[in-house]
Amino acid sequence: MELPVIITALALLQFTWFAMQVGSMRAKHGVKAPAMTGPPEFERMMRVQQNTMEQLVVFLPALWMHAYLVDPRWAAGIGAVFIIARFVYRAAYLKDPAGRSLGFSTGFIATAVLLVWTLVAATLNLV
Amino acid sequence: MELPVIITALALLQFTWFAMQVGSMRAKHGVKAPAMTGPPEFERMMRVQQNTMEQLVVFLPALWMHAYLVDPRWAAGIGAVFIIARFVYRAAYLKDPAGRSLGFSTGFIATAVLLVWTLVAATLNLV
Amino acid sequence: MELPVIITALALLQFTWFAMQVGSMRAKHGVKAPAMTGPPEFERMMRVQQNTMEQLVVFLPALWMHAYLVDPRWAAGIGAVFIIARFVYRAAYLKDPAGRSLGFSTGFIATAVLLVWTLVAATLNLV
Repeated sequence: MELPVIITALALLQFTWFAMQVGSMRAKHGVKAPAMTGPPEFERMMRVQQNTMEQLVVFLPALWMHAYLVDPRWAAGIGAVFIIARFVYRAAYLKDPAGRSLGFSTGFIATAVLLVWTLVAATLNLV
Repeated sequence: MELPVIITALALLQFTWFAMQVGSMRAKHGVKAPAMTGPPEFERMMRVQQNTMEQLVVFLPALWMHAYLVDPRWAAGIGAVFIIARFVYRAAYLKDPAGRSLGFSTGFIATAVLLVWTLVAATLNLV
Repeated sequence: MELPVIITALALLQFTWFAMQVGSMRAKHGVKAPAMTGPPEFERMMRVQQNTMEQLVVFLPALWMHAYLVDPRWAAGIGAVFIIARFVYRAAYLKDPAGRSLGFSTGFIATAVLLVWTLVAATLNLV
């Protein structure tokens, strides 16, 4: 289970880096806590971080259920696609939120594949 | 462990569906990212999704600790109550946020039962 | 694995308590759902809860990967530091958001230690 562990740790480090960038934007633009609105640059980075958290809440359980029930190497490989997609999403969103579809969809599909594959495998095990 | 896997996958699909509905409301009402405020219909759906995420962060670990330490069938059964309660919560919140108590409380109690039951079982195992 | 279970359950109960306090502030100040802005006391408590959720999304997987791959007693001990740090963070933030650094940093470092330690251990296992 080392491969899913490494993918999970990398995804969490990526998310932590996103969160630190929100903190940097707060400092740079003088957006004092607890304010959640500010210049576009701050709000975009914050939405990148928030959306990544929403995705992680689905991605991580899907990754681990797949790793245990189906195959840890496939889980890690699809998980790597998720992480790359999140970098693409971040870069596009910061440039222009309207261009976030490609990175978002790729990560979304990676998670959906893990989740549906696992659900089918678990259901077949039961019947 | 197939039953808790299936319940987890269904809860995550439900959450994904809620998130997709937030996206639909964004498109319908022209609420462009990164804006997080807009017409009541949009803000209500967004709060349903956000609150469901907050609940999942507690529910999923509680479900799995219970499944491993206590009983996977009880975990799955109580988990099914959680999912149904979230549908009730969503329907009530979209109609009128003031009526969200029943769905909220039922899901909250399901999670609390899993969590406290697990905490008691773990503590008894230690002493 | 009883010790990491107990730490996880306590961290989730702490988060649940934070969430209930957001609900209390909503009632006290008449901030009706789905509004997310209001008097400083409400917004501060809400940010304490939201930030704790963001931390939990990283902390809980790091705790469990460490418990399985490295040592469950070390995981639980470092996890206890995280929980205490979150109480310090809450108290400081409610008094004055500018003073939140100590509690935040301590919890952040606890999570980072779990995460990096696990990543190193997993990588060493592979090579």
